[in-house]
This record gives sequence, structure tokens and C-alpha cells, in this order.
Amino acid sequence: MVNGAESLVATLADEGVEVCFANPGTSEMHFLAALENPRLRSVLVLFEGIATGAADGYYRMRKSPAATLLHLGPGLANGIANLHNARRASSGIVNIVGEHATAHLRHDPPLKSDLEGLARPISHWVRRSISACAVATDIAAAITVAKGKPGQIATLVLPGDVSWGDAGDPVALPKHSACSEKPPAPAVERVNQVAEVLRKGEPTLIIAANLATRGKAVELLGRVAAATGCRIGTQFFTARLERGAGRVPLERIPYYVPAATKFLSGFKHIITLETTEPIAFFSYPGSPSLLKPVSCSVHTLTYAEEDSVEGLEMLLDALGARDTAPVLQQRTIVSPPEGKLDPTSIAIALTAALPENAILVDESLTTGRESLGLTAGAAPHDVLQNMGGSIGFGTPVATGAAIACPDSRVFCMVGDGSAMYTIQSLWTQAREGLNVTTIIFANHSYQILKTEFLNMGFGSPGPRALSMIDIDKPRIDWVAMGTSMGVPSVRVHDAGAFYKEMVNSIREPGPRLIEVAL
Amino acid sequence: MVNGAESLVATLADEGVEVCFANPGTSEMHFLAALENPRLRSVLVLFEGIATGAADGYYRMRKSPAATLLHLGPGLANGIANLHNARRASSGIVNIVGEHATAHLRHDPPLKSDLEGLARPISHWVRRSISACAVATDIAAAITVAKGKPGQIATLVLPGDVSWGDAGDPVALPKHSACSEKPPAPAVERVNQVAEVLRKGEPTLIIAANLATRGKAVELLGRVAAATGCRIGTQFFTARLERGAGRVPLERIPYYVPAATKFLSGFKHIITLETTEPIAFFSYPGSPSLLKPVSCSVHTLTYAEEDSVEGLEMLLDALGARDTAPVLQQRTIVSPPEGKLDPTSIAIALTAALPENAILVDESLTTGRESLGLTAGAAPHDVLQNMGGSIGFGTPVATGAAIACPDSRVFCMVGDGSAMYTIQSLWTQAREGLNVTTIIFANHSYQILKTEFLNMGFGSPGPRALSMIDIDKPRIDWVAMGTSMGVPSVRVHDAGAFYKEMVNSIREPGPRLIEVAL
Repeated sequence: MVNGAESLVATLADEGVEVCFANPGTSEMHFLAALENPRLRSVLVLFEGIATGAADGYYRMRKSPAATLLHLGPGLANGIANLHNARRASSGIVNIVGEHATAHLRHDPPLKSDLEGLARPISHWVRRSISACAVATDIAAAITVAKGKPGQIATLVLPGDVSWGDAGDPVALPKHSACSEKPPAPAVERVNQVAEVLRKGEPTLIIAANLATRGKAVELLGRVAAATGCRIGTQFFTARLERGAGRVPLERIPYYVPAATKFLSGFKHIITLETTEPIAFFSYPGSPSLLKPVSCSVHTLTYAEEDSVEGLEMLLDALGARDTAPVLQQRTIVSPPEGKLDPTSIAIALTAALPENAILVDESLTTGRESLGLTAGAAPHDVLQNMGGSIGFGTPVATGAAIACPDSRVFCMVGDGSAMYTIQSLWTQAREGLNVTTIIFANHSYQILKTEFLNMGFGSPGPRALSMIDIDKPRIDWVAMGTSMGVPSVRVHDAGAFYKEMVNSIREPGPRLIEVAL
Repeated sequence: MVNGAESLVATLADEGVEVCFANPGTSEMHFLAALENPRLRSVLVLFEGIATGAADGYYRMRKSPAATLLHLGPGLANGIANLHNARRASSGIVNIVGEHATAHLRHDPPLKSDLEGLARPISHWVRRSISACAVATDIAAAITVAKGKPGQIATLVLPGDVSWGDAGDPVALPKHSACSEKPPAPAVERVNQVAEVLRKGEPTLIIAANLATRGKAVELLGRVAAATGCRIGTQFFTARLERGAGRVPLERIPYYVPAATKFLSGFKHIITLETTEPIAFFSYPGSPSLLKPVSCSVHTLTYAEEDSVEGLEMLLDALGARDTAPVLQQRTIVSPPEGKLDPTSIAIALTAALPENAILVDESLTTGRESLGLTAGAAPHDVLQNMGGSIGFGTPVATGAAIACPDSRVFCMVGDGSAMYTIQSLWTQAREGLNVTTIIFANHSYQILKTEFLNMGFGSPGPRALSMIDIDKPRIDWVAMGTSMGVPSVRVHDAGAFYKEMVNSIREPGPRLIEVAL
């Protein structure tokens, strides 16, 4: 005989969930007790935004959902910003949110809140478990939702009495066939229409996202490009881009509206895989939301729920181009840089230092935006970017990616403003001995907002506005910050030292922090 | 002619809002530009939970709402946990949440989310401004809601095009008479019934909350107690308790269920002011939610929206006891402590060191719970506690209280687990030079959860459960943490040093951090 919490933990393990990122409270004590089950690894975080961001990073690398354990409404709320980012990245996550015992709720205790109300805006699926006997079925349903294509956010509300109630004897659930179902192929007519567009030879851009930016799909995209002369690319942000030397390179649509519209200006056709046509990240007075030229038409090859590899194979068959060799990215050979730290020298250091199969988490808004384009010829690596735009994404996602891939090193490039949002990640990285090198680009400013201020048409910010953008009074001491949470930390002032510390950080397991003083 | 953002900022100032706690993003650039208006003080925070918590602390000390500026749905979400606490404390807050321009929303940009959906669970009032001309009226309505009794959470969604649109010439709004309306008195019949209960002389406890734990109300409670022999107290947590030497002391209902039921066991009557009967904070298997004995009856003197001072004056008149002298708290004279740090020596240090009119923010779950009872005879001071139970409350509330009361020193007693939730507060304290002494009780554990684990009836936690409760691997170095954000920080290992550093922290303006190594 088991209780509800034990039944829940056993079902998570049975259904293939291996990790739970958790910050438990009183209402989750039974869940905590159930974690003595060694089949579920529990990872403690000191703030719930770390739990949800880590689950996002874990999913992107494993294509399998992790669970989070959150304490009541406020615990869920603290995780929402990174759930928003995960949702936009199509990451599957199973949230378990502790709740007061059902009978206690009528007395309106202090921690009561509208849990479903908070969960719905960022969940694809929300359910409140109403009995210990039902909890195994409930969590299995949540896992099925999270494992779908695209991945989804499933949130299960777990009242205390359901947790501690009698769930009977453990029973094996029927296998959830939905989880292993192959995603559907696109309709043949749609593929043929796309082939017809490509055969015209007019200027065409294929934009890939989600699973279409990884593995075989990228190679197939390269064959299409080589066969038809079309260009292949991604949106500005991509959930996980497999790139580097020996892989097919994808172009990146620029962030700023004038640059993006210029980039897209010559195209007659846009073909999309698991994404939509390019739109502006923000809106500006008198500036367009849609970035393509008016004369450009948009064609869908695959929708988010479809199989892009199969879609691309069908397309290559329709084009009679299955065996066309793709153009591959050459390895960029660079000498370690010296001198001033700037986007170019930073990019050279990255290109020289990145080991094979590194994972590059990119939340370096101002600095990294310029550097990243220059590292395409580094050793093969993955780039994970912020799909939802809520800052505080980088360090938690790096944490989860490192748990998912213990044999890779994760480099987390993050601006100082963003890093402060979820800095508690460092502690979990130290606790778990994770192979994460956090690179803080310390410009002591929400630098991107100065550009955005100009973009809004105001000219330069006045002194009071400026005081709300600069974060240099006081300057954050990132070496002290990292040290406070047990992460060995250094500060570098030139490109040579940056390169050297990048390489040093790879030599030993465990986390490191490099403050790049800009 | 002004734009919507300028109209909004001018109206905030016109209606008496003096401070805006802000973390702006691209969608709030026009608001940022409008902040050049010197009539609204803007305080930059590095995480939105600091903004909402600071607004809570500000309201508790000023009885007047501050504004927050939050960036889209994720910015609001990051502020929800402390809005939950503020809501439970009846603190009035005006949230301004930036939103994409209306026409941009239909393209589902990455940062789009269900803003109203996120706002509703923690707001009493939610509105989306739909034109620049309407924004002055909208924000005035929000302020009226926030200024009511009890204070409420009002959330205004501000789309970019409303911000940058033409709001015409500034016009003076009609005065919002609702804001200055006196709260109603309780019904005479109800007061007479309460007087009748008290005249019986049966064991009676009066429980006061919200405005009834401050100023004249506390003195009047003392007169009622002196005249009738009833006891007077508060719930375990109080939004703002004015106490200390020379004031009428209020007893505190214990936190843990067995202690609370024991405390309440002898009472025949409970009389409530601006609160309800005592309930358990959490529920435990086989343990009651309601804490009073079955034979005890509950009588309301004032509801949350009523005037407790007037209610108590009416009660004293009904009892013919208006001139009864209350019993006042004696000053506890203590020598500075020496030796081991424990709840008693910590309490003695606090009692000896607290200057007059200090503000004591209490989020020291395990350690402070025992210390606080012992400091009742310190110099007159205010205690602010966590009404919503969401941790990460202390340092933001201390930040806001210090902005509200620049002539007082704020002592923020906070457990290490709680402090990590919203540690970014320290940076704002350094930036603004706030008189806050943060006292970190570093037991390197979510110590309270060990007790809660026992309370759930499991015995001691197993090794895996324990690993989710202890936060000692690695130990957080609080001196490095404080230093990283520009707050002078020290560590103390004994009671003498703790007292000395408390006193030292008062000598100079600006923030200090004391790590109490337990």
C-alpha cells in the first residue's frame, strides 16, 4: 500500500521522468518523503525560476520532460517567467504544484491562492488531483501532454490530502501509446506546392525552427539549398540550433527591425518549418510588425506538430534531389586573441576555445548579439536561445542542460542585467558539481534599452531615464557573487585572459564563473 | 500636449503617488522617458519581486500606495509572490504593466502572454487602458482602489500605443472623494453585543489586525483589557504591529497547531477586529484547521473595511470605561549579551540595540520565531511580518519601508533560505543608500521544514529528503554576497559581536549586512 505522493513519484519514474527540479515547502512534505525512491533524481534549487528554467534546458537537450516541484501559488508564480520561455521554446515540462489539503481551503489560509488561475496562462494542461487513487492516472496524463510534439507545459495541482491519502496497491498503468507516436508527415499536396515554389528559382528563404534546426533535418535543409539555390535560415532566436564545423550552416534573421527588413527585402517566397513568418520582437511607433516585403508570399512546409525530417525527405523526393550534397560549414581556424575585449575578440576566443559538443546558452543581449554570428565555424556545438524574451533565462537553462548532458560542458553567456534575475542558479551548479562555465558580460547597464530608447524615436535618454537603465551604482562584483555561492570565479579585462580562462574552465569538472569586464 | 505615458506619470503625482519601484523594458520606454518628471521618484530594482515587495513595505509604513512598473507578463509574474503577500497584508499597490502595442498583439510576438489572466488571481482590480486619452482616468481609478480600506491591489495594463499616443492637453481630474472617505463605524448593535460579552467576565480574547494593531487603536485595546480583564492579542503574523516600551502589549497566538490550540483552550469568547478567527497556517493529517475550542464563540467588532478606532471608542462608551488607564509595556533593561548565539541571546542583543522608532521586518522563520517574543520591552518600534507566507518577503519589504521612512533604521531579520529568494534587494539598498541592517540567520537549512516534516507524522527525514532541506552544500558566504552588491557586510559568531555589529550598523547611514553564523 502506498500513499498518493509515493504513487506519484513511482509513476513519474515508470513513465520515464528521471529528474525533478524542486523547492519544496510544508505542503509538499509527503512528496519529499516519497523522494526516498531512488528512481527519481531530485535537484534542489533556491528559487522556483531556477526549477522551471532548468526543466526547459533539460528538455531541449534530452527531448524528454523533467518534473518541477513548486510550493503553492507563489511557488508556481515564481516559476512562471521561465515557464513562459519554455512554452515559447516548445519544451515539455511536468509541473507539480503542492496545495493545501482540500478541507483546509475553505478557511482561506494565508497561502491560499487561485492556483488554476495562475497556472492556466502558461500551461497547455491543468488538472487538480482529487484523490490519492487517481494521482497515478493524473500524472501519467500530464506526462503524455508534456511528451507530445511540440512539447507542452502540464501542471498538476496536488492537495495535501491527496498526497498523504491511501492510494492502494501500486498498479501498472496501461502504456501511453501517445507518447511514442510518430509525429504526422505534412500533406503531400502541401509538399508539392513547396516544391513547385522552389523549382521557380525565385529568391526563396526557408526558415526552420524547433526540431527542424537539429540533426538530420539540418542536413536535409542543406540538400534542398544545394539543389535549388534557396537560402536557409532561422528566426533570430532558436530553441536549439545544432551548428559548427562540418554541419550545414543556417543564416540568422537579424533582431532589429531595419536590419531584418533589409535582410528579407529581396525574397519572393518564405517557406516555414515548425514556425511562422518573421515578426518584430517588439513594436515601435510607425514601424512594421511583419518583416517580410509586401510582395513576398509565405508557404508552410511543416506545422509545429509535424515531422520535419519526413517533410524534407518528401520535398527532396519531389525535387528529385535526395542525393544532392549539402554545403557544409568549414572549421574556422583562429589564433587565441589578445588585446581589447570587444564582440570580435570575444567571438575569436569562443571559436578557439569551444570544445566539441559544447552547449552554448546565449542570453548575452548586447554583447553576444554581435559575437554569435562569428562563431559559426567553431567545433560542432549546440546553441540554446531565449524564445520567450523573459530575462533570467540563461543560468537556469544552463543548469538543466548540464544535468541533461553530464559529458558536455555548458557555456552560459549572459548579460549582467539578465544574470541578476535568477542568480541562485550558481548555487545549484556548485551543489551538483555541474560542468557550467558562466560568462558574465558586465557592461553594468541594461545596454539594450539604450538602443531601444533610440529606436522609440526619443534620441538619447535624459538623466533620470538613464539612471533607470544603468546598473553601475554600485557595480556588481561578480567574482564575489560567484564565490558567495561556491562557484570558483575570476575577472578578465582582455581577450587573452578571457580565452585562457575559458580553456582553464574546461580542465576540471564543476562550475566556473568568468566576469568579462567591459 | 502630452503622450499617454506623460499623462500617466503626471496623474500618479497629482493623486499623491510619490514613488515607483521599477524594472522597465522595451515596451516601457515611453514611461521611462516620462519619468523625467521630477514629481515621481523612480527606484530601480533588479528583479520584479523586489518592486512589489518594496511597494508592500512602503504602504505599511506610509498608508499610501506606491506604484510598480513591470515589463509585460513575465515581469508581472515575477512580482506575483510578493503581491500575494501584500494582498494578504491589505497593502494598497498600483501596478503598471507594460504591454505590446495593440496592433502587434495579433502576430503573437514572443513576449505576448495572457496579462489579465496572470493579473486577476492577485489583483482586486484589473484594467487594460485602451487609449492615451483615457489613461489618466484609468490610473486615477486604480489609485482610488489601492487607497481604499483595506488597501487593495490594482493592476493597469498599458499597451505601447497607449503610452506613445497623443493624450491631448493635461486636464485636472475631479478629486477622487472615495480616497479620503472615512471608513464606516461598526453597527451599534454589534458593538453592544460585544460589550455584553465582555461584561460577562468570561475568558475572552480580542484579536486585532491591520489598522487595529497600530497607534490609538492599540491604546484603546489596552483600556478595554484593563476595564474588563479580557486578554488582547494578534494572530501569529501581523502586517504592522506598533509595540515596545510605553505601548500597550499584545499577546501573539503561537504558530504551531498544538501550541496554538493550547493557548486558545481556555477562552469562551473570541472578539475580532479586522480579522477572522485563528486558523492553522498549514494543514496536517488528523490535525484541525480551526484552532479555537469547540465551546468558544466568535464575535466580530470590526470588519476589515471598518474603523477600529471608532469601534473601540464606541465599545469603551458602551462599557463606561473610556477613561480606564491601560497597562503599558515596561522597558526591559538588559546588558549587552555575550557568549553563544541562540534565540535568547539574539533577543537580548535586539532589545539592547534597537533604537527608538526602528522598523523590524521579520522573516526569520525558525530563529526569530523564538526571539521575537522576548523583545517586547525594547524601545518603541514597528514589526512587519509576512501575511501571505510566500518566502522572499523580508528584504524587499525592508527596502520599501526604508524608502518610506528615511529617518528610521530598518532591521531585516531573515533566514538564509528566505533571503536567497529575493537577494537582489541588497543592490537597491546600496544604490539608494537605504538605512537597512539585514540580519541573515545562517543555519544553512530550510530548518522550519525539518519541524514540518515531523509535524506531518513521518519521524525524521531520510537522507534524500534531508538533502532537499539542508542548503549547506555549499554554504552560502553571506559576506561575499553582500559585498558583491555593494553592502558592507560582516559575519558574527557570538552574541557579543552580534550586538556590537547591530550598534555599529546604526552609526552611519546606508545599508549593512550581518551574517549570524548559527
